[in-house]
Amino acid sequence: MCLLSGGLDSSTCLALARRDGYACYALSFDYGQRHRIELEAAARVAAGIGVERHIVAKIGLDAFGGSALTDQEIEVPKGELSQGIPVTYVPARNTIFLSFALAWAEVLESSDIFIGVNALDYSGYPDCRPEFIQAYERMANLATKAGVEGRTHLKIHTPLLELSKAEIVKLAHKLGLDFSLTHSCYDPDAAGRPCGQCDSCLLRAKGFSEAGIEDR
Amino acid sequence: MCLLSGGLDSSTCLALARRDGYACYALSFDYGQRHRIELEAAARVAAGIGVERHIVAKIGLDAFGGSALTDQEIEVPKGELSQGIPVTYVPARNTIFLSFALAWAEVLESSDIFIGVNALDYSGYPDCRPEFIQAYERMANLATKAGVEGRTHLKIHTPLLELSKAEIVKLAHKLGLDFSLTHSCYDPDAAGRPCGQCDSCLLRAKGFSEAGIEDR
Repeated sequence: MCLLSGGLDSSTCLALARRDGYACYALSFDYGQRHRIELEAAARVAAGIGVERHIVAKIGLDAFGGSALTDQEIEVPKGELSQGIPVTYVPARNTIFLSFALAWAEVLESSDIFIGVNALDYSGYPDCRPEFIQAYERMANLATKAGVEGRTHLKIHTPLLELSKAEIVKLAHKLGLDFSLTHSCYDPDAAGRPCGQCDSCLLRAKGFSEAGIEDR
Repeated sequence: MCLLSGGLDSSTCLALARRDGYACYALSFDYGQRHRIELEAAARVAAGIGVERHIVAKIGLDAFGGSALTDQEIEVPKGELSQGIPVTYVPARNTIFLSFALAWAEVLESSDIFIGVNALDYSGYPDCRPEFIQAYERMANLATKAGVEGRTHLKIHTPLLELSKAEIVKLAHKLGLDFSLTHSCYDPDAAGRPCGQCDSCLLRAKGFSEAGIEDR
């Protein structure tokens, strides 16, 4: 079970799970994000890597507002990397995403959830930090039937947690990930082309540059 | 911020938060449950008690299946109380519900989430136990911007946790809750009348009977 946004990190995470022999189930979310291109990328990546099943769960996260990624009234910052926790932060996003992964894992009787969070070049999101993941895993093992009955210990795998963006690029390259299938930009144009100026584009460009690998 | 299913427990929890002077925001879920009567009850209760706002978040929980409450193929057990964790258990339900509450709380800058879970007559659900709630609260404080910046400590209030169903009935009665607005049955008929035979109906009837209060 792997959370898949269609971005570079989650795609690399899925490719890694696949390489390590897991039967992969990919989970994406239609959460009222500003553009659909992300979901198209997720579908391409899931098909490209090869998964047992790809589900897009529709969740009404935009009902609450509060983020530039779901609220059309808030501008995506451009030009230089944001300091602190940026306005692109979606409240409790990874908490919600992991909770759906937990539900699906329980139905599939899977004890492994992969998430491509990253604590170094992590854009300052609180729910990408190792202490959050540890607390989540602990809670998850108390939340489920399988956990309570002692049938399984649920593990949240975060293979990219300690990697720099450049290291992720190198790893993805080694795994043979087709970079052109992935999409990272927070604010693409109507044709789906990345803006090149948002935090996500800037981090991606920096990663490829430092890795000495071409993004294509 | 109070999770509200429209059942007896969550309605009592909301009435209690209101009595204690909280500005109440009620959150319900359209999660592919077998019947809509539950959501109608939630709307009636929210209006009856008086809330600042009531949101029904639509979430595709039925995509995963695995529960009699979301899967039409699985029968709701009738006649006597289920032993162990019953088939009406919805995988990771409270984990998911609390995660949405956390997102909304963060947007509202609220540090209080109320949930009417109950560890005594709790139908055997793992995510109604105190150790689950404690682990959730710990995780939640690591998940959010406000928590990380130390601006607030998020508290998950579970005022019904240690109460028997009879005690909940007595408390609701004292708070002046209109029982006729609430709905507990897992499998009502087309007119919305409770079946009287599912776990939820049996627990409710037992509670009223032991409290010596009439359910109307």
